Amino acid sequence: MTIVEHPSRNGVDTAALFATIDAVKGNTEIAKFQFRASNTWVSGTHNRSTIHGFYGAMQEMTHKESRTYDADHPAVLVGNDNGPTPVEFVLHALAACLTSGLANIAAARGVNLTEVTSTVEGDIDLLGILGLSDEVRNGYQQIKVSFKLRGDDPEKLRAVVEQSRKRSAVYDVVTNGVPVAIEVDAG
Amino acid sequence: MTIVEHPSRNGVDTAALFATIDAVKGNTEIAKFQFRASNTWVSGTHNRSTIHGFYGAMQEMTHKESRTYDADHPAVLVGNDNGPTPVEFVLHALAACLTSGLANIAAARGVNLTEVTSTVEGDIDLLGILGLSDEVRNGYQQIKVSFKLRGDDPEKLRAVVEQSRKRSAVYDVVTNGVPVAIEVDAG
Repeated sequence: MTIVEHPSRNGVDTAALFATIDAVKGNTEIAKFQFRASNTWVSGTHNRSTIHGFYGAMQEMTHKESRTYDADHPAVLVGNDNGPTPVEFVLHALAACLTSGLANIAAARGVNLTEVTSTVEGDIDLLGILGLSDEVRNGYQQIKVSFKLRGDDPEKLRAVVEQSRKRSAVYDVVTNGVPVAIEVDAG
Repeated sequence: MTIVEHPSRNGVDTAALFATIDAVKGNTEIAKFQFRASNTWVSGTHNRSTIHGFYGAMQEMTHKESRTYDADHPAVLVGNDNGPTPVEFVLHALAACLTSGLANIAAARGVNLTEVTSTVEGDIDLLGILGLSDEVRNGYQQIKVSFKLRGDDPEKLRAVVEQSRKRSAVYDVVTNGVPVAIEVDAG
């Protein structure tokens, strides 16, 4: 399998993409994935997650390397700023998911991209998490994503963003919510 | 302001924490924050976010350094594995937020922590995002967080996790959802 045999558009190996979709059509078990992160508290609001293994395509798999990500609060929120806040990683995840998706969709539709940038802004009122108001929610009140795309016809570019929104995992999680179960071993 | 002047528990400067809460009680404008990420498409499903500036405490602020985070799909999902998937960053954000919160809450309650680790697992069926089923959602179907805590009395440890869940920004976002607006400049 080489680049020569699988022409790509926007850096997407469209032949492999369509082959994957065909494989999943033939056996839907392939599509069942479980992603994972493990986190260790360091001190105060500083903690660190490791992302490496996952389950998918009917087997345990790993990313090609284990990666760690620090999170913390900035000084203004009584932390030491050893990493972004947890809520900022949500914004990264949302931008990344929409961007990955639109690159795939553009390639599948034969739409060329030359530039894709985005900014994501999340508004949050800390009266919620500080326990100072029962009427203010803990999380973001609203999130705005602003995309700039360059490449083929603007209408086609807008259409791939819209299709990415319709098929984005993180957009779905962030807009619709997911049930979360928490277990505690405090032995 | 030194460590000597502000005794800390679990690495949390509790005096600063209570002072912050008092300051916010006096002027609720201080609590209005906006967090941000900016993302640039690299190639295919590979893209990169930068997290640096934010608004809070009535002023524009920055983290002490600008940090970048790559996201990509693994080979099995037709990417080059230059970073975790976007959905894995959501799991990191969730673990990090619950952990930051429980460390603060434990310190405020005078509960000592010696160890906090967690694993987060998110189950997702890719029939949704691949467009192969209209009945399967795009995002996670369920997420499970498993905490291990050591320190003071187990009942107190369980109680700080429960209080963190009640006041976690990311837990709220992930379980309840947030309105997301998307704007596109395809000029």
